[in-house]
Amino acid sequence: MDNTKSPPGGPNRPHHFRITHQSAECGARCATLSTLHGSFVTPVFMPVGTQATVKAMTPENLEEIGAEIILGNTYHLFIRPGHELIRRFGGLHGFMNWNRPILTDSGGFQIFSLRELAAVNEEGAAFRSHLDGSKLFLGPEDAVAVQEALGSDIMMALDTCIPYPADLRQAEEATALTSRWAARCRRARSNTGQLLFGIVQGGMHRELRRRSAEELREIGFDGYGIGGLSVGEPKELMYEMTRASAEDLPESHPRYLMGVGTPEDLVEGVRYGIDMFDCVMPTRNARNGMLFTSRGRVVIKNARFKSDDRPIDEECGCYTCRGFSRAYLRHLFMTREILSYQLNTIHNLFYYCSLMKKMRQAIRNDRFLEFRRDFYARRERHN
Amino acid sequence: MDNTKSPPGGPNRPHHFRITHQSAECGARCATLSTLHGSFVTPVFMPVGTQATVKAMTPENLEEIGAEIILGNTYHLFIRPGHELIRRFGGLHGFMNWNRPILTDSGGFQIFSLRELAAVNEEGAAFRSHLDGSKLFLGPEDAVAVQEALGSDIMMALDTCIPYPADLRQAEEATALTSRWAARCRRARSNTGQLLFGIVQGGMHRELRRRSAEELREIGFDGYGIGGLSVGEPKELMYEMTRASAEDLPESHPRYLMGVGTPEDLVEGVRYGIDMFDCVMPTRNARNGMLFTSRGRVVIKNARFKSDDRPIDEECGCYTCRGFSRAYLRHLFMTREILSYQLNTIHNLFYYCSLMKKMRQAIRNDRFLEFRRDFYARRERHN
Repeated sequence: MDNTKSPPGGPNRPHHFRITHQSAECGARCATLSTLHGSFVTPVFMPVGTQATVKAMTPENLEEIGAEIILGNTYHLFIRPGHELIRRFGGLHGFMNWNRPILTDSGGFQIFSLRELAAVNEEGAAFRSHLDGSKLFLGPEDAVAVQEALGSDIMMALDTCIPYPADLRQAEEATALTSRWAARCRRARSNTGQLLFGIVQGGMHRELRRRSAEELREIGFDGYGIGGLSVGEPKELMYEMTRASAEDLPESHPRYLMGVGTPEDLVEGVRYGIDMFDCVMPTRNARNGMLFTSRGRVVIKNARFKSDDRPIDEECGCYTCRGFSRAYLRHLFMTREILSYQLNTIHNLFYYCSLMKKMRQAIRNDRFLEFRRDFYARRERHN
Repeated sequence: MDNTKSPPGGPNRPHHFRITHQSAECGARCATLSTLHGSFVTPVFMPVGTQATVKAMTPENLEEIGAEIILGNTYHLFIRPGHELIRRFGGLHGFMNWNRPILTDSGGFQIFSLRELAAVNEEGAAFRSHLDGSKLFLGPEDAVAVQEALGSDIMMALDTCIPYPADLRQAEEATALTSRWAARCRRARSNTGQLLFGIVQGGMHRELRRRSAEELREIGFDGYGIGGLSVGEPKELMYEMTRASAEDLPESHPRYLMGVGTPEDLVEGVRYGIDMFDCVMPTRNARNGMLFTSRGRVVIKNARFKSDDRPIDEECGCYTCRGFSRAYLRHLFMTREILSYQLNTIHNLFYYCSLMKKMRQAIRNDRFLEFRRDFYARRERHN
């Protein structure tokens, strides 16, 4: 598939992404993204399945909470069990028994996170395994080859993430390297039908982000990730950079805000025209006993839930809220039962996926900003 | 419910237990046991749900693997979250969202297990909480009151377990105390419709076990547990005592071999006329990566499964075997993913419940001994 060719319907209109509704009030839009393993509607949240499993969830659970696409981590799978093994099992889909779309990141962010173990040069990133210290190398061509072996529906180009804060010169160098790597990824891809997204960097520098987006558009990708955010900067700056990068990117292609975020972040991102999100927050917080509700956050170990017979969220229709009280969930958390992780994760992911669904409905009904006001008002009433 | 009265159909034929098939070849039999939360067929295996959850299983998972009755631990629930709290939630059924039968043990075995924290006298057991060291007391009347608050369908009388080895005098004293406590439990029960089982003790002393069974029959219970086995004695001795106690107990009432055991133990127990079993083995071993199959045991972390694309057991129809390879399960185990506990537990409990189902079918078809020969032959071929 060569997505630089213009499909019928106009130049730069890709086959795989069809916008079905554009908000008249703001950047928010609904679309359908088609992949090798089927289509899904956006805006969408992707649960994170780092090691070929979304922690504490069976594939059946994922379908039940309404997950339409999940994310896998190239870095982790490359190290263990290895992409060649996974290839032999029909890719990540066959290996983990998930038949809907999968997006894999490129490994760039993990190398950034573990940068005391990594050395980045023009060729790529040399790093030591966080498991056994063995020497490994991942360049742009490798990142594509690994993701092709994993058989993900959407691959991400290898990028270099910029720490916060970073001076302009440091940010410029890293962003330029990301563009050169992006071009190499684009050249390295085979004709597998997998989509390939580039990743915008530029740190917190407005002009640099614009240049990054231009260079990526020049290369031409099936979609664009907005990277390097939520790395310690103030929330307002993160929103400003998100909005800026969304504006810099073509309307015609999917925009993916990487590694973000809270329910509030999703609402703001959608408003700026973001189509895709991923974050470990719903799953990780679930395991730490922090639950998301329509009225704000609940810390389940709190003593006031000891004999509370209500569900976590009285407006929620998930398996957890249909069958279990706060008192029971508190008991499971206090006794460190595995079922605590299971039920909390089901609830939090259901909350995230339902929030996206409600946003899609609001966009289609041309009342997204009203939805947004209501979303914040409910929280304020209960805080 | 007063089960000492004779229901229609003859003396000593209880209302709640109906034998539907008695093997002509051995002690094995099929029956239906009716409780407040419905009936189930025996022989049956009860998954252990110590802290108001069968570890790593949702109630939905339990229904899917075919669990007809589960077990709760009085000792643990008494300590945390407390039986009075659970009572307010409609008992254990409401608290944990399980609508089929539940059997609760009496706490006797846990006090025995934690005996360095306990002091037993005529009145009952004074012990310190294994959680915070607080002083607690559980006598026979308390054990019944707690189980009535928990609302279990089958309650167990408080017993004293005898260590192995124990001399005759020590065993005699403990067994006599168990009988006196059993009588007090019988007197303490209210008219709730819950069944109450006595527990045979006697250590490894044939005569003492006979006396224990006689004394319990004299008191009169809705069924009888065989306790104090699988406490370190040789396997042959355990089988001998099981057989002896089964013979000592009335044919008309359910017999429950407590805390036992391996798949082989279940087959032997059924042969001797045991109707009910419980054991942590399928659930605990699942979490340690040991899986039960029709051809014997599998240790999933073994390197030879690294790229094995077969299910754990090619003859198994469980969710795990229908969707996941040994290689994937090994990967989950090596990465310590929560899904490893979930999928392994689903498989092991399905294996146990299916084994019971196959035994029931064999009994009904009058070919239990043939089933038993085949059961061992398959294992030998593959060991």
